[in-house]
Amino acid sequence: MNFLEERIVKDGVVKKGNVLKVDSFLNHQMDIKLLDEMGAEFKRRFADKPINKILTIEASGIGIACVAAQHFNVPVVFAKKSQSINLDGDMYVAEVESFTHKCINHVIVAQKFLSPSDHVLIIDDFLANGCALQGLLQIVQSSGATVEGIGIAIEKGFQPGGRIIRNLGFQLESLAIVDGMNAETGEIQFRDQSKMNGSAGVGKDRICRSATLD
Amino acid sequence: MNFLEERIVKDGVVKKGNVLKVDSFLNHQMDIKLLDEMGAEFKRRFADKPINKILTIEASGIGIACVAAQHFNVPVVFAKKSQSINLDGDMYVAEVESFTHKCINHVIVAQKFLSPSDHVLIIDDFLANGCALQGLLQIVQSSGATVEGIGIAIEKGFQPGGRIIRNLGFQLESLAIVDGMNAETGEIQFRDQSKMNGSAGVGKDRICRSATLD
Repeated sequence: MNFLEERIVKDGVVKKGNVLKVDSFLNHQMDIKLLDEMGAEFKRRFADKPINKILTIEASGIGIACVAAQHFNVPVVFAKKSQSINLDGDMYVAEVESFTHKCINHVIVAQKFLSPSDHVLIIDDFLANGCALQGLLQIVQSSGATVEGIGIAIEKGFQPGGRIIRNLGFQLESLAIVDGMNAETGEIQFRDQSKMNGSAGVGKDRICRSATLD
Repeated sequence: MNFLEERIVKDGVVKKGNVLKVDSFLNHQMDIKLLDEMGAEFKRRFADKPINKILTIEASGIGIACVAAQHFNVPVVFAKKSQSINLDGDMYVAEVESFTHKCINHVIVAQKFLSPSDHVLIIDDFLANGCALQGLLQIVQSSGATVEGIGIAIEKGFQPGGRIIRNLGFQLESLAIVDGMNAETGEIQFRDQSKMNGSAGVGKDRICRSATLD
């Protein structure tokens, strides 16, 4: 197990309905030393890429992205989830479905912060169905910028988001991939990433409403 | 002028209605080196306080808080703005009004992340009427924890939030206090903080609906 898998086993809580709570160290209370370790690992995995900007999405991606950005020495842009009246000018907008919150969100980035000369690393805390991530990919591609890679803290490997994104050819690096959880025993099964071939994944695809990458 | 005031003059944009846009370096795109400099300055101003936790509020406070936390070597907790179905257990909830978004938000922190043994530094990007901040103060006080101080990037000194908070006896440190803006000329007037006496501020108080500190 790597450092994040060890922390998930130690402090994560498995709940019914395939919910993994990591709010004591990742997405409500944040262990900054852990975030720094994650940032160093993202830098190691994307060391050969000419990344000049990190893109994430509010809210829980921001802390991970900002600490990681110190390892890349680049600025962070965070996508907003609904139209703010303080956002003016031209914007990139993608419509994405949130299964957690049971609603449709508009994901928004001001056009002035992404251009064809940008080489973007997308960072987020969770990847499950991948709807939010597909919205971010749509926005980067709309801007003409290049997606150099995607760094995720925890991927739910039993949901289709990761497989879809890898099948599209993106370098997707998830620091921990959870292939199964048992709410009764608390057991968590991690994927052995040393054996990954880029097409791993189980389950029927759940089509995200944004469906921006067809 | 200090480093943040210089950056506001260089890259901030004054809009009609006393709007100061700093989205190119602070709250949409984030200059991580600037955030690091801000974190170091917060550490300098609160050097004598036994801070063991930083509390902020989603979304734009999170990046500032996480980078600052590296200077304090403490975890960050961010308050959420609406009930999430992934938040279970007991929660502290404060109701606050957002003038920017013209709505009422519930500010929420899980009770397990704040206890009477905590010494909290609150960090946020903007302070204007102070409604969100009052919600955070209410939550910390509900938990029995101690508020050691409040660190703000930009305070709108012509709105009453800062004066109210200082009058209540809190150590409030704003890295830049804007006392006036001219949307036609783009001029920004900063308060000379070397002359502050703790009761500066102009204008009639606008009472926040949360009114938690009466």
